[in-house]
Amino acid sequence: MTVTLSLRAQLLAARAAARALPAADRDAGLRAIAAGLRRDAQAVLRANAEDVRAARAAGTPEPQVDRLSLSEARVEAMAAACEQIADLPDPLDRALGGWRLAAGPRVTKVTVPFGVIAMIYESRPNVTVDAASLALKAGSAAVLRGSSTAMRSNMALAESMRRSLAGAALPEDAVQLVDSADRSLVTELLRANGLVDLVIPRGGAGLIRHVVENATVPVIETGVGNCHVYVDEGADLEMARRIVVNAKTQRPGVCNAAETLLVHEAAAAALLPGLGAELAAMGVEIRGCARTLELVPSAVPATEADWETEFLDLVLAVRVVPSLDAALEHIDAYGTKHSEAIVTRSLERAERFKRQVEAAAVFVNASTRFNDGFEFGFGAEIGISTQKLHARGPMGLAELVTYKYVVDGSGEVRG
Amino acid sequence: MTVTLSLRAQLLAARAAARALPAADRDAGLRAIAAGLRRDAQAVLRANAEDVRAARAAGTPEPQVDRLSLSEARVEAMAAACEQIADLPDPLDRALGGWRLAAGPRVTKVTVPFGVIAMIYESRPNVTVDAASLALKAGSAAVLRGSSTAMRSNMALAESMRRSLAGAALPEDAVQLVDSADRSLVTELLRANGLVDLVIPRGGAGLIRHVVENATVPVIETGVGNCHVYVDEGADLEMARRIVVNAKTQRPGVCNAAETLLVHEAAAAALLPGLGAELAAMGVEIRGCARTLELVPSAVPATEADWETEFLDLVLAVRVVPSLDAALEHIDAYGTKHSEAIVTRSLERAERFKRQVEAAAVFVNASTRFNDGFEFGFGAEIGISTQKLHARGPMGLAELVTYKYVVDGSGEVRG
Repeated sequence: MTVTLSLRAQLLAARAAARALPAADRDAGLRAIAAGLRRDAQAVLRANAEDVRAARAAGTPEPQVDRLSLSEARVEAMAAACEQIADLPDPLDRALGGWRLAAGPRVTKVTVPFGVIAMIYESRPNVTVDAASLALKAGSAAVLRGSSTAMRSNMALAESMRRSLAGAALPEDAVQLVDSADRSLVTELLRANGLVDLVIPRGGAGLIRHVVENATVPVIETGVGNCHVYVDEGADLEMARRIVVNAKTQRPGVCNAAETLLVHEAAAAALLPGLGAELAAMGVEIRGCARTLELVPSAVPATEADWETEFLDLVLAVRVVPSLDAALEHIDAYGTKHSEAIVTRSLERAERFKRQVEAAAVFVNASTRFNDGFEFGFGAEIGISTQKLHARGPMGLAELVTYKYVVDGSGEVRG
Repeated sequence: MTVTLSLRAQLLAARAAARALPAADRDAGLRAIAAGLRRDAQAVLRANAEDVRAARAAGTPEPQVDRLSLSEARVEAMAAACEQIADLPDPLDRALGGWRLAAGPRVTKVTVPFGVIAMIYESRPNVTVDAASLALKAGSAAVLRGSSTAMRSNMALAESMRRSLAGAALPEDAVQLVDSADRSLVTELLRANGLVDLVIPRGGAGLIRHVVENATVPVIETGVGNCHVYVDEGADLEMARRIVVNAKTQRPGVCNAAETLLVHEAAAAALLPGLGAELAAMGVEIRGCARTLELVPSAVPATEADWETEFLDLVLAVRVVPSLDAALEHIDAYGTKHSEAIVTRSLERAERFKRQVEAAAVFVNASTRFNDGFEFGFGAEIGISTQKLHARGPMGLAELVTYKYVVDGSGEVRG
């Protein structure tokens, strides 16, 4: 697979720009981007209106149109996010450790940029600005490939950012937008070893699978969250109710929302009738196992597919299980290693759950919704990693840099 | 791509075994493996003798036959290495950080195993034991795919290790040897997402490229080292001589040996005649640029391919450059981001070199040969990463684990 001349030219320009970033005043660049977005808001909104019109004309469902749509408030939120990122501490040039080798030289492990970070993402145009500003803060150039439905919006945003960088004496080529009309460029981007240091997909399960299966450049897999709450025998049922309602309904369309509730059989009769009614009143459709159907009149039967599905909607699968082990087996079979919660009063079972569940974040008596870069105090988030290499869970600036070893000697050689 | 039943069965067995490892006495398992290797030494040597006979019959070059060959001393060294690994601190259950979320819950970032670590490697059978023992110490199962030339040796070693694990009440399935006669199994291993958590290739450039280009499971790229020593204008020439001789000749067949010497033109006339004669006397063939040929009578002309080649032999490419910038450009064009050294007295140029050279380890006035897990004090090494994701430079036990976030609450939900 060769990289087409124009994509290759973009990537080379991005690499060259990336070299100048670590020493540049990147925070000034981010503030210039914020000011530029405010200045260019009307042009961005006009471009976005065309994208929205085209999406509606193509029969796009309204929730997707909403995700695509920008408003003055959403542009202002993007600008404000850039300023917040500018205010965060610089993630570069941090000594992660240092020691003296037995032979004499001093070694320092120091954070350095990746170089070129590519993002492949779906409809929300705000990712264009978020990803670019996080990459810039981390000293890397951003190569952005958004969805074709948002192409006009993304072009307007990328042009505004590039102009602002140039105005702040930073290399505009540090922000590159890949033509989303040509789908073959995605494949080429994913195989541009030596030119792309890291690719992060952000979007639905299909997009992420495509990236993982086709990339030869390093990938961080993000985001698919088929998350569970397990309510243990003897749990505080009022606490369980509060956590399940929050994990399911506080923001159902995001990856750390709960999709399946597992209830120990000893807790089911006391928990499910009331909780089922409360969720139903909030508009949640319950898809239950046979025992759940007995306890929750509004529930419909769950199918095998329901255990596997990240609904991202007001739908909750509910299964009554005979034991913690059965809950662990269910999570192992259907979970996506994202966020898993137990509600329990048992120290022993809390410890087992924490140890045995394979997930980026494991919660005891707390909502899965806390698996988030802002809640974790990172000040920013580019996604939530569900892989084990490099970063797991929320990825902030610390996860968007790499390190090198610097060895200072005075002529030492190896014996 | 589907995983064949038998490989799939091996991987599932490895996963199941991996679950039992974190809580097991892995150090006792490693000591049992060491004792078992000593006990089984004659069986291992007989199997190895057959591999060696077959390799010689196939006309394998003698240096490769030597890499394949085991002796009582080499088996003892493998056993001793297992014991050394057993003596290292446990890399699991280490808190990498912890804090309280604003909403109340306490979060702890704690090291956990990858699960299943696959190694794909070339002829040296000692990698079979090294990789398995490091993976076990890190709480992961090891899936080993060595070269077909070492199959009998690897089988004898794996069988010995599995028997020892079982004898120490550890799951023998934590060590799996993949049939190297069936090359399609490599491809299947590389695409066994969900069953293999990490694959580490160890071997020549061709093997590593094959793995990087075909893997959909997470990869850590290791080892190819086209390393440079740059001797700056005004450098201490005696120090330069010592470092170049060490970096080239102390162990020429390894990845952190120097392959190209870059010399500032102001230092060339004083350095190269003497150094060239000294290297030639040590059996080093010098392939030089035009200016080098004037200064080193024994040198032969370098071709473009020589700048790109990891010789792994007593061959040194030598180029006289007009400036630090020219040296940086040469390294950027031909380097493999492994180990790069400058010999200089200039603080400013040392800082520029450290900052601008993209490599896992950058050396000022020290030999590239120090880029090594043992020299760095890691107590063990599975390879030297040349990628930027997860691990860079020497990989010891700390790089063979991942982490999870554990969040302990008391009923908190997200507002």
